[in-house]
Amino acid sequence: MQVIDLGAKLALIDEPWSPRIVAELNDAHVKLAKLQGEFVFHHHEHEDELFLVVAGRLLMRFRDHEVWLEPGQLLVVPKGVEHCPVAPETAHVLLIEPKTTLNTGNLRNERTVEARWI
Amino acid sequence: MQVIDLGAKLALIDEPWSPRIVAELNDAHVKLAKLQGEFVFHHHEHEDELFLVVAGRLLMRFRDHEVWLEPGQLLVVPKGVEHCPVAPETAHVLLIEPKTTLNTGNLRNERTVEARWI
Repeated sequence: MQVIDLGAKLALIDEPWSPRIVAELNDAHVKLAKLQGEFVFHHHEHEDELFLVVAGRLLMRFRDHEVWLEPGQLLVVPKGVEHCPVAPETAHVLLIEPKTTLNTGNLRNERTVEARWI
Repeated sequence: MQVIDLGAKLALIDEPWSPRIVAELNDAHVKLAKLQGEFVFHHHEHEDELFLVVAGRLLMRFRDHEVWLEPGQLLVVPKGVEHCPVAPETAHVLLIEPKTTLNTGNLRNERTVEARWI
Protein backbone atom coordinates (compact mmCIF):
# COMPACT_ATOMS: atom_id res chain seq x y z
CA MET A 1 0.00 0.00 0.00
CA GLN A 2 1.96 2.94 -1.32
CA VAL A 3 1.28 6.54 -2.15
CA ILE A 4 1.60 6.94 -5.92
CA ASP A 5 2.81 10.30 -7.15
CA LEU A 6 1.45 10.70 -10.66
CA GLY A 7 4.08 13.21 -11.74
CA ALA A 8 6.97 11.08 -10.46
CA LYS A 9 5.63 7.97 -12.18
CA LEU A 10 4.96 9.83 -15.43
CA ALA A 11 8.55 11.06 -15.42
CA LEU A 12 9.64 7.40 -15.72
CA ILE A 13 7.70 6.84 -18.92
CA ASP A 14 9.70 7.47 -22.06
CA GLU A 15 7.55 5.84 -24.75
CA PRO A 16 4.27 7.24 -26.00
CA TRP A 17 1.19 4.99 -26.28
CA SER A 18 2.59 2.53 -23.79
CA PRO A 19 0.45 2.55 -20.65
CA ARG A 20 2.16 1.55 -17.41
CA ILE A 21 0.33 0.08 -14.43
CA VAL A 22 0.71 1.97 -11.16
CA ALA A 23 -1.99 0.41 -8.97
CA GLU A 24 -4.69 -2.21 -8.87
CA LEU A 25 -8.17 -1.63 -7.64
CA ASN A 26 -10.64 -4.50 -7.45
CA ASP A 27 -10.67 -5.93 -10.99
CA ALA A 28 -9.12 -2.84 -12.53
CA HIS A 29 -5.69 -1.43 -13.19
CA VAL A 30 -4.80 2.21 -12.77
CA LYS A 31 -2.42 3.13 -15.57
CA LEU A 32 -0.46 6.15 -16.67
CA ALA A 33 0.43 6.93 -20.24
CA LYS A 34 2.01 9.59 -22.36
CA LEU A 35 0.11 10.08 -25.58
CA GLN A 36 1.51 11.83 -28.59
CA GLY A 37 0.08 11.99 -32.09
CA GLU A 38 -2.87 9.95 -33.27
CA PHE A 39 -3.80 6.45 -32.12
CA VAL A 40 -6.17 4.12 -34.00
CA PHE A 41 -9.94 3.78 -33.87
CA HIS A 42 -10.83 0.83 -31.67
CA HIS A 43 -13.35 -0.23 -29.11
CA HIS A 44 -13.40 -2.42 -26.02
CA GLU A 45 -16.05 -5.10 -26.24
CA HIS A 46 -16.72 -5.50 -22.54
CA GLU A 47 -14.90 -2.69 -20.77
CA ASP A 48 -15.62 0.94 -20.02
CA GLU A 49 -12.43 2.98 -19.99
CA LEU A 50 -11.69 6.11 -17.98
CA PHE A 51 -9.37 8.84 -19.26
CA LEU A 52 -8.27 11.59 -16.87
CA VAL A 53 -5.95 14.21 -18.30
CA VAL A 54 -3.12 15.08 -15.91
CA ALA A 55 -1.19 17.40 -18.24
CA GLY A 56 -1.50 18.54 -21.83
CA ARG A 57 -4.65 18.21 -23.92
CA LEU A 58 -6.34 15.17 -25.36
CA LEU A 59 -8.73 15.05 -28.28
CA MET A 60 -11.05 12.07 -28.22
CA ARG A 61 -12.50 11.31 -31.63
CA PHE A 62 -15.66 9.31 -32.04
CA ARG A 63 -17.21 8.30 -35.33
CA ASP A 64 -19.67 11.19 -35.25
CA HIS A 65 -18.09 13.82 -33.02
CA GLU A 66 -15.04 14.69 -30.97
CA VAL A 67 -14.32 16.24 -27.58
CA TRP A 68 -11.29 17.91 -26.02
CA LEU A 69 -10.10 17.06 -22.54
CA GLU A 70 -8.00 19.51 -20.55
CA PRO A 71 -6.06 18.82 -17.35
CA GLY A 72 -8.45 17.96 -14.52
CA GLN A 73 -11.09 16.66 -16.90
CA LEU A 74 -12.15 13.06 -17.32
CA LEU A 75 -14.19 11.04 -19.74
CA VAL A 76 -15.54 7.51 -19.52
CA VAL A 77 -15.74 5.80 -22.90
CA PRO A 78 -18.42 3.12 -22.54
CA LYS A 79 -17.78 -0.39 -23.79
CA GLY A 80 -18.50 -0.89 -27.45
CA VAL A 81 -17.97 2.76 -28.40
CA GLU A 82 -15.35 3.30 -31.08
CA HIS A 83 -12.85 5.97 -30.14
CA CYS A 84 -9.50 7.30 -31.28
CA PRO A 85 -7.36 9.32 -28.85
CA VAL A 86 -5.31 12.09 -30.42
CA ALA A 87 -2.71 14.26 -28.69
CA PRO A 88 -1.37 16.99 -31.00
CA GLU A 89 1.26 17.64 -28.34
CA THR A 90 2.15 15.24 -25.53
CA ALA A 91 -0.70 14.51 -23.13
CA HIS A 92 -0.22 12.82 -19.74
CA VAL A 93 -3.18 10.65 -18.96
CA LEU A 94 -4.43 8.44 -16.15
CA LEU A 95 -6.44 5.44 -17.34
CA ILE A 96 -8.61 3.09 -15.35
CA GLU A 97 -9.82 -0.06 -16.98
CA PRO A 98 -10.36 -3.74 -16.19
CA LYS A 99 -7.24 -5.84 -15.94
CA THR A 100 -8.31 -7.68 -19.07
CA THR A 101 -8.17 -4.54 -21.22
CA LEU A 102 -5.85 -4.43 -24.21
CA ASN A 103 -4.76 -0.95 -25.28
CA THR A 104 -5.99 -1.49 -28.81
CA GLY A 105 -9.27 -3.06 -27.69
CA ASN A 106 -10.71 -5.22 -30.44
CA LEU A 107 -7.57 -4.91 -32.57
CA ARG A 108 -4.22 -6.60 -32.34
CA ASN A 109 -1.69 -4.74 -34.40
CA GLU A 110 1.65 -2.94 -34.22
CA ARG A 111 0.18 -0.51 -31.67
CA THR A 112 -0.76 -3.32 -29.29
CA VAL A 113 1.37 -3.43 -26.13
CA GLU A 114 1.11 -5.32 -22.89
CA ALA A 115 0.97 -2.92 -19.96
CA ARG A 116 3.83 -3.32 -17.49
CA TRP A 117 4.09 -2.10 -13.91
CA ILE A 118 6.25 0.86 -13.03
CA MET B 1 -20.82 10.39 -22.53
CA GLN B 2 -19.74 13.72 -21.12
CA VAL B 3 -16.50 15.41 -20.25
CA ILE B 4 -16.39 15.83 -16.47
CA ASP B 5 -14.51 18.84 -15.17
CA LEU B 6 -13.39 17.95 -11.66
CA GLY B 7 -13.06 21.56 -10.51
CA ALA B 8 -16.49 22.53 -11.79
CA LYS B 9 -18.13 19.53 -10.14
CA LEU B 10 -16.28 20.08 -6.87
CA ALA B 11 -17.54 23.67 -6.83
CA LEU B 12 -21.08 22.26 -6.60
CA ILE B 13 -20.36 20.33 -3.41
CA ASP B 14 -21.12 22.23 -0.23
CA GLU B 15 -21.12 19.50 2.39
CA PRO B 16 -17.99 17.76 3.63
CA TRP B 17 -17.88 13.94 3.85
CA SER B 18 -20.66 13.57 1.34
CA PRO B 19 -19.30 11.95 -1.83
CA ARG B 20 -21.09 12.74 -5.07
CA ILE B 21 -21.09 10.44 -8.09
CA VAL B 22 -19.82 11.98 -11.32
CA ALA B 23 -19.36 8.93 -13.55
CA GLU B 24 -19.75 5.18 -13.73
CA LEU B 25 -17.13 2.82 -15.00
CA ASN B 26 -17.89 -0.89 -15.26
CA ASP B 27 -19.04 -1.85 -11.73
CA ALA B 28 -17.57 1.24 -10.12
CA HIS B 29 -18.56 4.80 -9.41
CA VAL B 30 -16.25 7.75 -9.76
CA LYS B 31 -17.01 10.14 -6.92
CA LEU B 32 -15.85 13.52 -5.75
CA ALA B 33 -15.82 14.65 -2.14
CA LYS B 34 -14.72 17.49 0.03
CA LEU B 35 -13.18 16.24 3.23
CA GLN B 36 -12.70 18.38 6.29
CA GLY B 37 -11.72 17.28 9.76
CA GLU B 38 -11.53 13.68 10.89
CA PHE B 39 -13.69 10.81 9.68
CA VAL B 40 -14.08 7.47 11.49
CA PHE B 41 -12.04 4.29 11.32
CA HIS B 42 -13.80 1.81 9.06
CA HIS B 43 -13.05 -0.79 6.45
CA HIS B 44 -14.71 -2.11 3.34
CA GLU B 45 -15.19 -5.85 3.48
CA HIS B 46 -15.06 -6.55 -0.24
CA GLU B 47 -13.95 -3.36 -1.94
CA ASP B 48 -10.64 -1.69 -2.62
CA GLU B 49 -11.01 2.09 -2.59
CA LEU B 50 -8.97 4.63 -4.54
CA PHE B 51 -8.27 8.12 -3.20
CA LEU B 52 -6.75 10.72 -5.52
CA VAL B 53 -6.13 14.14 -4.02
CA VAL B 54 -7.17 16.95 -6.37
CA ALA B 55 -6.56 19.86 -3.98
CA GLY B 56 -5.52 20.26 -0.36
CA ARG B 57 -3.84 17.54 1.69
CA LEU B 58 -5.20 14.29 3.05
CA LEU B 59 -3.85 12.30 5.95
CA MET B 60 -4.76 8.62 5.81
CA ARG B 61 -4.50 6.96 9.20
CA PHE B 62 -4.13 3.24 9.55
CA ARG B 63 -3.99 1.33 12.82
CA ASP B 64 -0.21 1.18 12.76
CA HIS B 65 0.93 4.09 10.59
CA GLU B 66 -0.26 7.04 8.57
CA VAL B 67 0.55 8.63 5.21
CA TRP B 68 0.02 12.07 3.72
CA LEU B 69 -1.38 12.55 0.23
CA GLU B 70 -0.73 15.75 -1.70
CA PRO B 71 -2.44 16.92 -4.90
CA GLY B 72 -1.61 14.55 -7.76
CA GLN B 73 -1.03 11.62 -5.42
CA LEU B 74 -3.22 8.57 -5.08
CA LEU B 75 -3.57 5.67 -2.71
CA VAL B 76 -5.52 2.44 -3.01
CA VAL B 77 -6.78 1.16 0.34
CA PRO B 78 -7.24 -2.59 -0.09
CA LYS B 79 -10.39 -4.28 1.10
CA GLY B 80 -10.39 -5.21 4.74
CA VAL B 81 -7.85 -2.56 5.76
CA GLU B 82 -9.05 -0.21 8.48
CA HIS B 83 -8.48 3.42 7.60
CA CYS B 84 -9.49 6.85 8.79
CA PRO B 85 -9.21 9.83 6.42
CA VAL B 86 -8.32 13.13 8.06
CA ALA B 87 -8.18 16.55 6.40
CA PRO B 88 -6.89 19.22 8.76
CA GLU B 89 -7.98 21.76 6.14
CA THR B 90 -10.38 21.02 3.30
CA ALA B 91 -9.18 18.37 0.86
CA HIS B 92 -10.77 17.77 -2.55
CA VAL B 93 -10.65 14.11 -3.40
CA LEU B 94 -11.59 11.82 -6.26
CA LEU B 95 -12.74 8.37 -5.15
CA ILE B 96 -13.23 5.25 -7.20
CA GLU B 97 -14.97 2.33 -5.64
CA PRO B 98 -17.53 -0.35 -6.49
CA LYS B 99 -21.12 0.82 -6.76
CA THR B 100 -21.94 -1.21 -3.67
CA THR B 101 -19.56 0.79 -1.46
CA LEU B 102 -20.93 2.63 1.57
CA ASN B 103 -18.87 5.61 2.69
CA THR B 104 -18.58 4.24 6.21
CA GLY B 105 -17.77 0.72 5.02
CA ASN B 106 -18.60 -1.78 7.72
CA LEU B 107 -20.33 0.83 9.90
CA ARG B 108 -23.73 2.44 9.66
CA ASN B 109 -23.84 5.53 11.77
CA GLU B 110 -24.49 9.25 11.64
CA ARG B 111 -21.63 9.65 9.14
CA THR B 112 -23.26 7.22 6.69
CA VAL B 113 -24.62 8.89 3.56
CA GLU B 114 -25.90 7.58 0.26
CA ALA B 115 -23.91 9.01 -2.61
CA ARG B 116 -25.95 11.06 -5.06
CA TRP B 117 -25.13 12.07 -8.62
CA ILE B 118 -24.12 15.61 -9.42
